[in-house]
Amino acid sequence: MSILVVGSVALDSVRTPFGEVEEALGGSATFFSVAASFFNRVRMVAVVGEDFPPEYLGFLRSRGVDLQGLQVVPGRTFRWRGYYDYDLNDAHTLETQLNVFEDFRPAIPEEYRDSEFVFLANIDPVLQSMVLDQVRSPRLVLCDTMNYWIENKREELLETVSRVDYLLLNDAEARQLAGEPNLIAAGRKLLEMGPSRVIIKKGEHGVIMLGEGTFFSLPAYPLESVFDPTGAGDSFGGGFLGFLSREPEMTEESIRRAVVYGSVAASFAVEDFSCRRLSALTREDIEARYREFMEITCF
Amino acid sequence: MSILVVGSVALDSVRTPFGEVEEALGGSATFFSVAASFFNRVRMVAVVGEDFPPEYLGFLRSRGVDLQGLQVVPGRTFRWRGYYDYDLNDAHTLETQLNVFEDFRPAIPEEYRDSEFVFLANIDPVLQSMVLDQVRSPRLVLCDTMNYWIENKREELLETVSRVDYLLLNDAEARQLAGEPNLIAAGRKLLEMGPSRVIIKKGEHGVIMLGEGTFFSLPAYPLESVFDPTGAGDSFGGGFLGFLSREPEMTEESIRRAVVYGSVAASFAVEDFSCRRLSALTREDIEARYREFMEITCF
Repeated sequence: MSILVVGSVALDSVRTPFGEVEEALGGSATFFSVAASFFNRVRMVAVVGEDFPPEYLGFLRSRGVDLQGLQVVPGRTFRWRGYYDYDLNDAHTLETQLNVFEDFRPAIPEEYRDSEFVFLANIDPVLQSMVLDQVRSPRLVLCDTMNYWIENKREELLETVSRVDYLLLNDAEARQLAGEPNLIAAGRKLLEMGPSRVIIKKGEHGVIMLGEGTFFSLPAYPLESVFDPTGAGDSFGGGFLGFLSREPEMTEESIRRAVVYGSVAASFAVEDFSCRRLSALTREDIEARYREFMEITCF
Repeated sequence: MSILVVGSVALDSVRTPFGEVEEALGGSATFFSVAASFFNRVRMVAVVGEDFPPEYLGFLRSRGVDLQGLQVVPGRTFRWRGYYDYDLNDAHTLETQLNVFEDFRPAIPEEYRDSEFVFLANIDPVLQSMVLDQVRSPRLVLCDTMNYWIENKREELLETVSRVDYLLLNDAEARQLAGEPNLIAAGRKLLEMGPSRVIIKKGEHGVIMLGEGTFFSLPAYPLESVFDPTGAGDSFGGGFLGFLSREPEMTEESIRRAVVYGSVAASFAVEDFSCRRLSALTREDIEARYREFMEITCF
């Protein structure tokens, strides 16, 4: 089953209490693809500038990512510079250079339009809708978003949300989009907006998934040190859709297992800067942590 | 197996966004005993004044609580007045009248000294140690505490903690006592202080339990509205020790199941003021919610 991601590829400069990196490989489409690559090939639609380091392209190819939809255009690649304090929950942005990302219009190559699993990473909801106009009949569309779009493009976002299958957001975004402080009640409100599932990421507190008549709650993997939280949510998406795209059927059980694989990917992603930890993994590492999740949650 | 609790019995006046009560039955020993009463009889050591409403005594007796160790002394009963804002995580104290609690010295009746399960509710650690001097050879001592003792009687608290089996506290207290911001690392540090298990309550985010070579994480029951969080931690203790006191053996499995029963009790406790919700329950209600916990966490 084929997977398509539309999102950003970026050069991230990040500082945390544990170190810093300059112009490391980042972006939502990147983290998603690398996490999903342990399960399946990913077709990537994104844009970079002509300054994009060839070794990063080589790295993505080595992960089996299909780059036919990656536009390389004149100009500079999207750059983000930020830092995290000790609580590591809030990213503080120092500088955002949209550069070539400013004029990004997702063009889905003909060969990608039959994609069965689609991840709409966190981009302008108008662009997300544009993607939906181009894909034929995906089995599952998973959609991410962020506070900026909730505040500034609420109507457009609601339109997109009404067209997707699963909505993925963090707890603050869920409360904000639903206009409801209680997270469970917020999740129920979001379900009424169209998606059949709402997956709410709670960082160090794990993740909950709501659906019609079903509720799943998974704690986070217990990490003694979180190195850099950048990309955790997109890595979750990659583990989630990657696993699910290989399942013969989408059952309650397989969807829950996908949430665990998403959490496994996210827990690895935050253990180092950029994709370093993810790219050093084997599938067996992933399975071992999956078994650890079973061990720490069973009763 | 017999259970002993030493703690407070209070008259609570509480205001939350959802309503208020005046001089309702409260106190750590109360919530613990009522929650444990679904599993076992509890021997209570506490103090009240002569003004303590006889109907509250009648209620505790109706729950099978053994009140031989409840001292009724001249003066007024301990009173607490506080409120919660919408986040419901922080109790704001408006007034604390220690009254007869100020001179409380726990005297364990001879008939109680063979108690096998002991809950040292949140009182002065010096008094907690006094209790330990009087009980003979308990199988399991569970100890609660709070920020006030961590700040003001740290040495005495560390002495008590070194003598107990299981330590029960919330996430902020765990970080504060361990002097470590990461909760997992904090839990490990607390284990080094003596207890064989550390149970950290995270409110709406559930609970984690650390032990030598073992880790358990349970999400919270998904409540759309929390009415009044007062007594949640003590109700957890009651469900936990109540269940465990009936188990033939203390195994990893039975201890984890006890954590779930503790969480069940806490989830009910916060659904109404005082002990109202707890006292309206049947054992079947408790079992039904236990099964719900299995349903929402299994994968």
